[in-house]
Amino acid sequence: MISPRIEGHSSSMKNKQFTTADQVALEEIMFHRRDIRGNNFLSDQIPDNVVQKILFSASLAPSVGFSQPWEFVVIDDDKIKNQIHQSFLVETERAGASFSREKRAMYEKLKLEGILEAPVNIAVFYKPSEDSVLGQNTMVETGEYSVVCAIQNMWLMARALNIGLGWVSILDPEEVKKVLNAPSSHKLVAYLCIGYVKEFFTAPELEKLKWKKRKEISSTVYMNKYSGSGS
Amino acid sequence: MISPRIEGHSSSMKNKQFTTADQVALEEIMFHRRDIRGNNFLSDQIPDNVVQKILFSASLAPSVGFSQPWEFVVIDDDKIKNQIHQSFLVETERAGASFSREKRAMYEKLKLEGILEAPVNIAVFYKPSEDSVLGQNTMVETGEYSVVCAIQNMWLMARALNIGLGWVSILDPEEVKKVLNAPSSHKLVAYLCIGYVKEFFTAPELEKLKWKKRKEISSTVYMNKYSGSGS
Repeated sequence: MISPRIEGHSSSMKNKQFTTADQVALEEIMFHRRDIRGNNFLSDQIPDNVVQKILFSASLAPSVGFSQPWEFVVIDDDKIKNQIHQSFLVETERAGASFSREKRAMYEKLKLEGILEAPVNIAVFYKPSEDSVLGQNTMVETGEYSVVCAIQNMWLMARALNIGLGWVSILDPEEVKKVLNAPSSHKLVAYLCIGYVKEFFTAPELEKLKWKKRKEISSTVYMNKYSGSGS
Repeated sequence: MISPRIEGHSSSMKNKQFTTADQVALEEIMFHRRDIRGNNFLSDQIPDNVVQKILFSASLAPSVGFSQPWEFVVIDDDKIKNQIHQSFLVETERAGASFSREKRAMYEKLKLEGILEAPVNIAVFYKPSEDSVLGQNTMVETGEYSVVCAIQNMWLMARALNIGLGWVSILDPEEVKKVLNAPSSHKLVAYLCIGYVKEFFTAPELEKLKWKKRKEISSTVYMNKYSGSGS
């Protein structure tokens, strides 16, 4: 079996100290990560061992009570992709109606997914535990949140491997579950499209198009508590 | 103002190509990331500009429709930490009752949070948008999921900075909101404890203690669909 790990890692030493060079590498990967859509994917196949490296990064994510409640369906079958794409077509029309006239015109021009163009799709599910999970009694959503941490690891690892990833959320989760024959107890957390790209933009497409402005970090940070009444 | 960015970054070039060295750095950071509790935090203060770097990494996360729906309350006030810790004490006793007798004995010995020991706590909230968000109509949870992506960025950046982070989920979110005077529309996604550490373990504590086994990656991956009936 081919190891899923990147070659050159330093095994499981204790108290590993990272350097400024490592911090720069991480920040650059985060900074250059983009959401990729179908007008930007290349059809080049992704080697199996590269897909394995992305899945391995998911397995390194934190999870509540070490529950590792994630499951992945790796899809390369065009028939299945087409069935999923049908759900996108229904839902994107429904969603368009929620925008103002001005935004709706822009919305209709946007390419919002790459289901058919990306060589690999990965549906990511949350599988609830049958037993009580340490840390999940009070905030039950932490199970799904663990799956999202795994997805963010995958997104960063894909970008480090110079591979694009797009998260499609304009899908009916129940329809996707039906197409993939998923157990009824499972919850679809994300549907990801993965492939090599024509280009990685310098900024998120919705920022470039002025759909939304980037927030000032200081506008999102409070010290000790939200202001207002109280001590 | 001090830039929150790590020194040495290469600005906003297009199509940045990452190298094997970058991939190794990322995988190592993911591999050595741990959930840190109070028996492992040092009381050393974290410089402000280091906290800023962690918050900057959050701002680089993906978000549905570029909504950036995250807010952070940075807590260093002992009075507030004590009020939050009270909620932990109530909830941990309640949660303990859900485990078998054998696991309960282990549960009661585990140190499950570092609210008072960590010099900095950060409560992370989801702030719902007032307008329709592109991509959030069909899967409304993607707003909260965006906040979780930001948290995973923070966790990885903290680890790259050789700083520990622990996620406390044994808290009553409504109680935390009350203590922090949070707007009623906001949702508490996570309560994080951040500080320098005595050590980073070679494996997750719950794995070392055999509370749960690590899953084989292959046991979590399916090709094209879940098996069973269907084409």
